[in-house]
This record gives sequence, C-alpha cells and structure tokens, in this order.
Amino acid sequence: MELARRRGFFWQSYEIYGGESGFIDYGPLGTLLKRKIEQKWIDEFVRKEGLMLIDTPILAPSIVFEASGHTTYFTDPITTCKNCGRKWRADHLLEEQAKESCEGLTLEELHKKMEEKNIRCPECKGGLEPPKFFNELFKTTIGPYSENVGYGRPETAQGIFSNFKRLYELARGKLPFGVAQVGRCVRNEISPRQGPIRLRELTIMEIEFFFDPENPKCEKIFGVKDEKLRLLPEKLLLEGVTEPVEVTVKEALEKGYIKSEWNAYFMVKAKKFVEMLGVPAEKQFFKEKLPNERAHYSTQTYDQLVELSRWGAVELSGHAWRSNYDLKMHMVYSGEDLRVFIPYDNPQKVKKLVVEPNKKSLAKDFGEEALRVARLIILSQPEILAEALKNDGFYSLRGNGKTYKITPNHVNIREEIVEEKGKRILPNVAEPSFGLDRLFYAALEYAYSEKEGRVVLRLPRDLAPIEVAVFPLMSRDGLPEKAKEVYGMLLSHGFVVEYDESGSIGRRYARMDEVGTPLAVTVDYQTLQDNTVTLRDRDTWEQIRIKIEKLPLALEKYFKEKLEFKDLVKIS
Amino acid sequence: MELARRRGFFWQSYEIYGGESGFIDYGPLGTLLKRKIEQKWIDEFVRKEGLMLIDTPILAPSIVFEASGHTTYFTDPITTCKNCGRKWRADHLLEEQAKESCEGLTLEELHKKMEEKNIRCPECKGGLEPPKFFNELFKTTIGPYSENVGYGRPETAQGIFSNFKRLYELARGKLPFGVAQVGRCVRNEISPRQGPIRLRELTIMEIEFFFDPENPKCEKIFGVKDEKLRLLPEKLLLEGVTEPVEVTVKEALEKGYIKSEWNAYFMVKAKKFVEMLGVPAEKQFFKEKLPNERAHYSTQTYDQLVELSRWGAVELSGHAWRSNYDLKMHMVYSGEDLRVFIPYDNPQKVKKLVVEPNKKSLAKDFGEEALRVARLIILSQPEILAEALKNDGFYSLRGNGKTYKITPNHVNIREEIVEEKGKRILPNVAEPSFGLDRLFYAALEYAYSEKEGRVVLRLPRDLAPIEVAVFPLMSRDGLPEKAKEVYGMLLSHGFVVEYDESGSIGRRYARMDEVGTPLAVTVDYQTLQDNTVTLRDRDTWEQIRIKIEKLPLALEKYFKEKLEFKDLVKIS
Repeated sequence: MELARRRGFFWQSYEIYGGESGFIDYGPLGTLLKRKIEQKWIDEFVRKEGLMLIDTPILAPSIVFEASGHTTYFTDPITTCKNCGRKWRADHLLEEQAKESCEGLTLEELHKKMEEKNIRCPECKGGLEPPKFFNELFKTTIGPYSENVGYGRPETAQGIFSNFKRLYELARGKLPFGVAQVGRCVRNEISPRQGPIRLRELTIMEIEFFFDPENPKCEKIFGVKDEKLRLLPEKLLLEGVTEPVEVTVKEALEKGYIKSEWNAYFMVKAKKFVEMLGVPAEKQFFKEKLPNERAHYSTQTYDQLVELSRWGAVELSGHAWRSNYDLKMHMVYSGEDLRVFIPYDNPQKVKKLVVEPNKKSLAKDFGEEALRVARLIILSQPEILAEALKNDGFYSLRGNGKTYKITPNHVNIREEIVEEKGKRILPNVAEPSFGLDRLFYAALEYAYSEKEGRVVLRLPRDLAPIEVAVFPLMSRDGLPEKAKEVYGMLLSHGFVVEYDESGSIGRRYARMDEVGTPLAVTVDYQTLQDNTVTLRDRDTWEQIRIKIEKLPLALEKYFKEKLEFKDLVKIS
Repeated sequence: MELARRRGFFWQSYEIYGGESGFIDYGPLGTLLKRKIEQKWIDEFVRKEGLMLIDTPILAPSIVFEASGHTTYFTDPITTCKNCGRKWRADHLLEEQAKESCEGLTLEELHKKMEEKNIRCPECKGGLEPPKFFNELFKTTIGPYSENVGYGRPETAQGIFSNFKRLYELARGKLPFGVAQVGRCVRNEISPRQGPIRLRELTIMEIEFFFDPENPKCEKIFGVKDEKLRLLPEKLLLEGVTEPVEVTVKEALEKGYIKSEWNAYFMVKAKKFVEMLGVPAEKQFFKEKLPNERAHYSTQTYDQLVELSRWGAVELSGHAWRSNYDLKMHMVYSGEDLRVFIPYDNPQKVKKLVVEPNKKSLAKDFGEEALRVARLIILSQPEILAEALKNDGFYSLRGNGKTYKITPNHVNIREEIVEEKGKRILPNVAEPSFGLDRLFYAALEYAYSEKEGRVVLRLPRDLAPIEVAVFPLMSRDGLPEKAKEVYGMLLSHGFVVEYDESGSIGRRYARMDEVGTPLAVTVDYQTLQDNTVTLRDRDTWEQIRIKIEKLPLALEKYFKEKLEFKDLVKIS
C-alpha cells in the first residue's frame, strides 16, 4: 500500500479534503496498469470469443432499476449507534466482531445475533439500533423536473438487457450470442473500510451470454472438458466441506456442481485470465453461493476467490446463471416483446388459448393507459390469466411498475387450433462479471517481491505500465543526447518508454524494478564507439549488449512473442 | 444516423422505455471505434508527450465543486412555459427562433430579448416565464447520511487539480508537467435535443498542463512555429470579421491572438489529431470566446470547431488558459498549501510582512475550527490582510466554504528582513479538453461516402472497428472450413476479424464497406489448390492475390506502417 501510494499506483480520493471512503484515484502508473488489464480482458473475452462490446450510460431513469428489481432488492442492513449516531453495516459488524458469516439472514435474525453477541459501535462502543434495509443505489434527478428520478447503475448488465431487442437483431436473430460491457458503476456502500476492495465507485467488466434454455449446450465445452477447476459447490458446503475440491470441467458438469455449460466454459476462461495476471491457479477457487446468499435474479452463482494477504479470500469475479429474470422483467415493465422466435423443424398444429384485449372496456377503465394494458395482456400467459379469471373473477396484471386489475369484461378468450412454425421464448443468461479494481489489486499484490532487500514488482511483462526505460550512464559527455535519440526511436515504434538521467544508475535501475519495468536500456561510453547499448532484465538483473538498430525488433519479440530475455542476445 | 442505428454504431439510450434525451448507447461497432479514438488520443497526447494519465472518480463530495465554483457558476438559463409547464433552455430557444447568439447575456438581457422576439414554447406555443439560472450538476448523497451531498463531475479537471500536490511530487517537483484524464462526465442539460452532440453523459479527454507563469516558454514551440492555424481571435471578432484567418503559430503569438505558447502548441496537436480522424484542416478552425462567453475560470479560451452537415459548426475541443484559478480555490477551500517552490539563482534579501495567527484568541472565537482558520491565515496575502485590518478594522477570510471575520487581535503582524532562496508560486494551467463523443461523430460523418449508390465508410484504417473480414466464396465444398482456419490464424495474430458466410459475396463486401472494414479476405476454389486468397480494398474495390502465410505480415505492414494497398502485392 505504501509503494502503491508513493509510486503513484493508487491512493484514496480527495485527500486534501480529508479523503472520501470508498473512492480511489489511480495515479499515472496505476492508470496504465488498469487500462492494460482492461484491454487484455477485452482481448480475451470479446475479440477472441467474437462477442459484442457495448457502452451504455451510468445514469438511468428510475424505471430501469424498478424493472431490474434494484429499487427493491439492492439493499444492505444498516444499524445506527444509539450513542454517537454513526451508521454501520450490521452484517459486517457481526462478521468483524463475532467472526460469523451472516449473508442472507433476515433483519430479525440479524438483530437477534447482534444482541446475542453484544455487538457495539466500533467508534464509541455505544449500543446499536435494530437493523433496517438501506438501498444502495445512488439517486439523482435527470433534467429540470424534480419528479424524474434517476439512478447510477450498480452493474453494467441492465444496459445490455434493456437493449436486448436491438442486440439480438445485430446478432442477426440467432442464439447463442454474448454481449460484454466494461464501465464505471456506483454503489452507495454504507461504511466502506477496505481500501480498494470495497468501493463506492468501481469498474465492472461483464458479459451477458444469451442462450436457448431448451438447447443449453455450449459448443466450446469440448475444448475445455479436461481443464481443472477448484470448486466449493453448494452440495459439499452443505455437507460441511470447507476446502475446495479439484475436479475437471467434465466431472463438475456430470456431478451437477455447475449447472450451465456456458458458465463452466467462462469459469475456465476466468481461471486462465487471472493466471495471466500473475495469480497461480492454486491460489484461486470457485465457491458457490448458497440460496439465501444469492442475488434476487440468480439461479446459480459461483464466486471466483483469490487469497489476498491483507483482505483474505476476495471475490474477483462472479459467475451467475441469471435465468431469464431480467429480460422477463424488462418485458413486463416496458410492454415490449423481448422473446425470440425459435423455429420448429416441422410446423406443429396446437390447441391454444387466445386472449384478446377488449379495447372499449379497457379504454373505459384505464383511460390513457389502455393501450399499454392491452399490450401487457397480449404478452401475458393466456392459461394463467384464464385460470385466474375463472377462479377468482379477476387477474392481477403486473407491468409498467403497477398492478392492473383485469376482469372478464376486459378480454375475449377463445380456443383455437393453430399451426405454429416455432415458438417464442426468453433466452437464459450466463453472466461472468469481473471487478476490474480488485483484479488490479490482486495483480499488484502477486507481483510484489523482494530481492536483496529491494522491491521488484514482477508484473507479467505485457501488463507493465512502463515497458522500457532508457538511461544515459552519466549525465555528461554526450551520453544524454545519445540516450534521448534511443528514447525517441523507441517512442516512435510505439513503446511506453521512460527517460531518466537523475541519480546513480543503480538507483535508476531500482526505481524501475520497483514499478515493474521489464527492460532497461543503458547508453554508455561503448555506445559512442559501436552503437551498442546494454539491455537489462528486471527479474534476473542480467544484462546483454545489443545493437541500437536491433532494439525495436528485440522488444517486439520480447513483448509480443514472449521470447526469453536471454534469447534476445541472438537477435543482436 | 440511420446507418449508425442500423449497423450498431450508436442509438438513443433506453429505447424500450421511450428513450431518454441526452443519453446514447454505443453499439458493438461504435464501442470499438470510440475506444480506438480514445486510445489514439492517449497515444498522441500522453505517451508521445510524456504526460501522466490519471483516473479519478466521477462522484465527488460537495466541497470539491464548491471550491471549483461549479455549485455557483455551472448554470444555464431556464424558462418555463406558462401554458404547458415545460421547461426549456432560454438561450437555445432564442438562438433557434430568432437566430441570434446570446451566450453571456444576463438574465435581464435574455428576458428582454425573449419578449422583443416573441419567443414561444416550441411544444405548445405558450408564453414563457422570465428565465432563471438552473444548476446543471447532478446531485446525490454519498453514504447513509443525508447531509453528505455529492455531485457527478461535469469535467475531469477537478480530479487533477485536487490531486496537484501528489502529482507535483510524482513529477519530481519540477515544472512544467502535464496530467491527462479520460473519463465519463455528467451534465444535467435542461432540454438536450441534438442527439450525440449535446449529451447529459459524455466522455471528456483533457489535459491540465502546469507551467510557471513567470517562465511560460514552451520548449516545443520551435518545432511547430511554421504550422498554420485557422483562427478567429477576439480582436478580429470585435472588428466584425466572421471568416477565420490563416496564420502561422509564430504570427498568432506575435500578434497576441494566442496568449500562451503552451496553448498554441496543443492547438496545433489538436488540429493534427482531428485530421487523423479524417477531418481535413480546411474544415477546422479555432474561435476565441469573448470575455462574456468564457467560463468563470478562464483567461483565454479557443474552441476548435468543425463543420458538421447536420449540426453546423460544432466545438470538438476547447483550449483554455485557466490561469491559477482552480489551484488557488482548492488551496483556500482545503487549507493545504498547493504552491510550488521556485528557487532563485541567488538568494535574495527582502523586506517582508509576516502574519502569525494568534492561536489563543482564534481558539476563543472559532473553537473547533481555530486550527483551520490559522492555516488559512498563513496562506493569505499578508499585505492585503494587514491593509484591511488597518482600513476596515477587520478582514474577511474566505475558506472551507465559509467566510471568517478576522480582527486585529487574531494575528500578530511584524516586518522582517529575510533571506529568500526562492519563492512559492501557483502554476498556471493550459487546458486542452476534447469531447470524445463529438470526435466520434465527426469521424463517422467525414468517413461517410457513397460509391455507385452504396455506402462506403472511409474511416482511417487504424480506426476501423473491424480490421479484416474473412469470407468463403461459397458456403460449401470445404471453403468454410478453410476460411475458418484463416480466420483463426488472423485472430491469433491479434487482428479484429469478422467471419461471414451468409448471402452472396457481393452482399458481404457491401456489408463490410458500410461499416468501414478496410480489408476483406476471400477463400475461393483456387485457395484449395495453391493456398492463396484474394485481398480486397474497401476504397478502390481492387483485389490482389496473396499467399495465406503472408497475410499476417501484409496486414501488419498495412495497419502499422500504412503501406499502400497496391504495394501489398509485393509482399506475396
């Protein structure tokens, strides 16, 4: 953390105003590292997988998060100190003070536990009020009318779901297809106190992968079926198992540990991606969320966890099977048909209930909203509606954020024999979702090492913020001029280069080791004779001599083709 | 616009909920294009210029924007229809209905003009109320305490200014240096009705370049002094000139058209950057803002304007000389000394007023705030403070968002002869600030062309969302399998590739021309014989044959080294 602050990777935001919890600033080196991780993710998950990448706003009108359920369910339990008035997250206090996990407890259960364990205000030791739910959406007003409530998005997913119709067209009307988004999200955490791990503003990289629930096969699963995953599935958790088991993808699917092939496929990709950031596979595992811990939209969720020295096992990505929850809700709230048409091999004759809205009586009872109610009736399940009208005399039609009471006079119901060429279904969704800030932190922590009492940041070479440093051995005798030429030449070849001539050469090497710069070029007196420079390796501190004109090619091969440092000598 | 929507460049956000003004979604192709423009900007302005790039939050506590002046000055005039209650931007209505620019008018002047010109509600033709100021910051609450007001940033600049102290350290305590930031910003526009041009959520790319006002020379100006700029400076505007004059940078500085060398340097870079996006220099010009049009922090501002067919001359970037306004304000509001130390060549003996806070009497009158007030006293100008105490008997000390009344008993003032090794100054700031969304739109518009009745999007090759398409001539006879091999091979070399086998080959070429894909590879029957494919150029529709194994190198040379298409044949 000290290194991160001092060398400009990250620090708490608004320091001169006392700092603001839950917000961090990325400094010059941090920004470069973060962007490289982001670009690598896009390369692995979007470019290589042929997914679409979209970019939608952070702010959304209220109805979007009413539909998604966030205005109702995106809450955490809050408690207030009776003495000093400070507010805290009740479940976190319990976890910290009583070392008990209490995800998924009801408010009453939480309260009971808080009393049992005598949980107190961490600041003044005062007693605490019974917990309440606090909604963590950031709320604002869009435009000059105060009634137009808007929220900051807590995830990028709704920008994808609410665009499903258009995206399906862009996918040329075929399942499966995946859409990714990388973007800033905001979550109004109650009392974030974990530095870069629990943020009020964070960057999420996520994929919504849409597939036909009746044809959920992942065509790519064959290529990864022997890959190993370390899993802690619900089944084993309920048996009291606490250590992950290592199984192949094939076994995980056969034993029902992972329910969706698409999720399994992306879990393998996630494992490999985190490995590319420098976190070995054996430091990673996937833990299934228990039913009471899962988000309101989820059928099955695995968290990808990584051991961090300061924060324990931390979730770097989540792998949810979101079923069709979101599309269904947006369909209901918007009145737009978001179902896709799946053709049958042969047309089928089927007996079908047809419910038609009776426009006159709807207009009479619902006025301006009649058209919307009519659309919602067409989208509803005819069997359920007819059954309700028969049994109860009315049907509660949800949509547009309201409930409409539909009575028999509002509809005409008849039975028809129709020939159907296919059916309309709502796709299911596999959602791998990554926290970029946590990936960044994990990459930094796993790169941190010490060698002979000095810090060497062993970042994977393709993530290093500065790719190559250029130094004149001395800041005289024409060496700086020559070194600046080399610097300019490498810049023009597209490398991220740092020039430095201040202090001893040893100190300059140490500065670069500390920020993970893989290579350093030094211009010395021999350079002036024969146009060779020394090239130094961050990790081994080995040096080779190489002709200046060969440098661009050598660097190209080192970064792109991952040539070993010692083999670069062959290029010269 | 139709093409942009249909092919997935961009569209209005939240369409299924009726659309939300001022917000756009970038579709798959749009996101790739936007990211490439962003990356190119970072490459040109950050990597090649050796600037720092940082990344700070969108949300900030209230005090940040109180300091910057945005809570007071970030306003626009709003008027309400007396008949239908709709709200409008008063100055925009005047410009639209009376074709008169009225930037910088007072509310009274605006109102008078509105009555003179009989401006009406565009929706219902009703009369309008006198205009008021509407603050366009998006407001929210950070954390669970309702008094903790926060705002969404309308520019990224404050994240840089409020970090100045740390950034100056990272620049090793030397001026000049520049810091860049690219990020989402939000502005609660009153009634945005210009599609992608006036957005409530936008991405800004900006630089704050800090320099010593007493040594404002730009060491790079020599390299660009003969570059030509098309300018409309204040001087000429006031003489009634309406057409830009073309002058060299040297002339612009000598004639005083541009006051800061650093601004001039970045204006040249801006011109060239917009040229790289496909907008010729003769379609660009820089117009100076008149004093009453400038933002509250600006000493001189030029807008870079580009002619757009649908929206007229639109500002793509702004080049402000922000003086030391922001640093000064953050210093006052935070009580942190943000001045930098500039050493003299030789120490100087100077007579100096020294003002020392009297801690006891401050504690008595200001209680808990005494320490803060003491710090503010130390930061204040001794001469001004002493003068005020002498003349008025008190001094109004601003800071921390408040005004404190300082009386003679609060301070001890004495004169001293001190030897000074240097002085503390606040750097000045040159700020080039670009609107990414508008650059994106301009690039799209200038790329749009038609050839033989079909759309060809002539995007610069390095901006094209899809770099190369791979087609089998027919979707049979083993051609798709072979084409997929080529597709996989190009993917593994890092290219953005699209595979397509649906429809006629002509239709597939047309689809790619329409989205600006520079190259298309077709696998045909000859391929199966000799492992050659055809390579087709988007702009000329010329085709050459090339060996599959030579493709990666040919593409590399085409994209990186900008080799001419017809010269690619030499590689095969």
